[in-house]
Amino acid sequence: MSIFAEKFHLRIPGPTPIPPRVQQAMAHPMIGHRSGQASQLIQECIQHLQPVFGTKQSPLLISGSGTSALEAAVINSVSVDEEAIVVVTGAFGDRFAKILQRYGITCHRLEIPWGKACDPDTLATFVQKHPQSRAVFMTYCETSTGVLNPIAELAKVIHQHSDALTIVDAVSCLGAVPTKMDEWGIDLIVSGSQKAMMLPPGLAFVACSERAWSVIEKNNNPRFYLDLPAYKKNMEKDTTPYTPAVSLLFGLRESLHMLEEEGLDHVYHRHEQLKQMTRAGIEALGLELMTSDVDASPTVTSIWGGKGKWDSEELRKQLRQLQVIVAGGQQHLKGQIFRIGHMGYCDPLDILTVFNTLELSLAKIGVSIPLGQGVKAAQEVMLRHV
Amino acid sequence: MSIFAEKFHLRIPGPTPIPPRVQQAMAHPMIGHRSGQASQLIQECIQHLQPVFGTKQSPLLISGSGTSALEAAVINSVSVDEEAIVVVTGAFGDRFAKILQRYGITCHRLEIPWGKACDPDTLATFVQKHPQSRAVFMTYCETSTGVLNPIAELAKVIHQHSDALTIVDAVSCLGAVPTKMDEWGIDLIVSGSQKAMMLPPGLAFVACSERAWSVIEKNNNPRFYLDLPAYKKNMEKDTTPYTPAVSLLFGLRESLHMLEEEGLDHVYHRHEQLKQMTRAGIEALGLELMTSDVDASPTVTSIWGGKGKWDSEELRKQLRQLQVIVAGGQQHLKGQIFRIGHMGYCDPLDILTVFNTLELSLAKIGVSIPLGQGVKAAQEVMLRHV
Repeated sequence: MSIFAEKFHLRIPGPTPIPPRVQQAMAHPMIGHRSGQASQLIQECIQHLQPVFGTKQSPLLISGSGTSALEAAVINSVSVDEEAIVVVTGAFGDRFAKILQRYGITCHRLEIPWGKACDPDTLATFVQKHPQSRAVFMTYCETSTGVLNPIAELAKVIHQHSDALTIVDAVSCLGAVPTKMDEWGIDLIVSGSQKAMMLPPGLAFVACSERAWSVIEKNNNPRFYLDLPAYKKNMEKDTTPYTPAVSLLFGLRESLHMLEEEGLDHVYHRHEQLKQMTRAGIEALGLELMTSDVDASPTVTSIWGGKGKWDSEELRKQLRQLQVIVAGGQQHLKGQIFRIGHMGYCDPLDILTVFNTLELSLAKIGVSIPLGQGVKAAQEVMLRHV
Repeated sequence: MSIFAEKFHLRIPGPTPIPPRVQQAMAHPMIGHRSGQASQLIQECIQHLQPVFGTKQSPLLISGSGTSALEAAVINSVSVDEEAIVVVTGAFGDRFAKILQRYGITCHRLEIPWGKACDPDTLATFVQKHPQSRAVFMTYCETSTGVLNPIAELAKVIHQHSDALTIVDAVSCLGAVPTKMDEWGIDLIVSGSQKAMMLPPGLAFVACSERAWSVIEKNNNPRFYLDLPAYKKNMEKDTTPYTPAVSLLFGLRESLHMLEEEGLDHVYHRHEQLKQMTRAGIEALGLELMTSDVDASPTVTSIWGGKGKWDSEELRKQLRQLQVIVAGGQQHLKGQIFRIGHMGYCDPLDILTVFNTLELSLAKIGVSIPLGQGVKAAQEVMLRHV
């Protein structure tokens, strides 16, 4: 085995690299989950999550993948005999729709071409067409395409035209982009540990507005592990209904400290810079970005493959040989695009590393690109930001 | 803060202490969950879990608390219009019943006095009284009382008198007691990471027999995150349907290596010894064990408090001051009993430490006990085992 086997660069849109400080925090000796120490830990996590969500509400902690929180959002807020709207901008909007469908909830899919954000007018029209909808499910950052939906404006038009709850999947951007749940009138936000929160996967977060709680508490869908009122009741006593992923909670407290030390505004600015560096570099190499500047997420960038001229999967293989891991496409985009994750524990030098190796890999698979020009374009963005 | 703040002895029945080797394994740099390396990791975990379950089936890996696996067992195997039996020997049998009831499944509770195991004849009679039951839910080790139910014999009488599936919660004993799923005709076993498996909480396991799969695959209950066929389909490709708790998987591979290095028979023998030491010491101090020798679990021992003469919660506080953490009672046993966990990363010297401090703590709260006699009785058990 190469001595460099563990010296790789994980640049997929989650899971993301774990900072050493977080790693060390997670190595804390195990504690009892009903102890005073655990209550203190849970209390601190919740308190420091609030500014990240932009809410005075207390986010709930669920041990599970992000999808467990998506399901919790669905089954706690819409009854099986009701209707809901899902804004489908990619694979994760599609997942919301699949969960609704699995429960027999009438699901109105607003299909947006993959790679584009939903615009508020389109949603306004759709909401008016389906006045019985009890909730509108949206994806803040659509991980599968690198689109950031304008959820503040989308929430606004929903409230203008309906009483539906506004429910947002912020798994792949919470902690990397401004999120003002209360100010924007978002009723429910779900997120996860393994993206911009700089933790291993296994912890999910759900924050609910007062308005959401009034609906959730009347909801009679059968549910147990994902019953949000049980989490709320326990959270009020600084605990969880079932044994939580304690080591991840130790890590979460540390990653939240790190976000605060850097300052959330700086964190958001850094991600914006990482996005701009990535996009500038890609354009300088003559490759094609999947999303427009306006629609692009600060956390992940999708790039078209060679469209017959060269193979993006071949490119990913070359990058892997240089110890840089990027993601491919999902569903119908498999083999069509590659995706560079730039969220969480990621700094500008990491993006230069991506271009160092991306240029080499393109050259190796025979794509004629100007060596050094991707790096240069990214460096120029850095100079503007310094 | 005391320099010894992190030098405590966690002797509750889960979460349990994490071995340094497992801690180090979990510090592996994060990897992509769809990578070849992740597939290899998942494959190794599943393969080495098989002997622990005593099955040729492939245990499924769910990111979540043990309760997520209990719910998965319920909703995948019994339809909402069907009936099922739950053997309730304590708080975790009760949890199975609560999940069934939440889903509107007709639940026949076989109530066994807390602190006693279910005997096969009692179950045989009960099964014959409820011939429509599609499944019998049982608890292998009932964490709340320290009872180990004789699940091999219970499964036998179920099969003699019915076609019901035999479903076992082995959360607080799998990896500490012999478990022969295939040989004993157990149809479904659920377990979790944070007990005898020596890992932090956050990972649950579900193994299903062929017979269970034939029922599960016909089951139409709506479910998404806990849909076992989705886990099966993905496990066949060495992956999981949703982002798994990757750091816990690295830990699991290491803890499974450790169980193999020690040898499962030795692991089981060690737990038997820990139980005997604990019971002998408690009796030597004149305290009252909650369970009989036959019914006692090798993983956790429940002891009655002073029944009005002294307060078990006061005792626990004294023990905490000496850095030893034991558990109290659950539900109606709160304040009545205390529980010593002795599973996972626990060796005979840990039990001596428990008696060192238990004797001091009893003396401190004014209980007249013969100092040193608990330790002596436990040492005598050690000498017999060496």
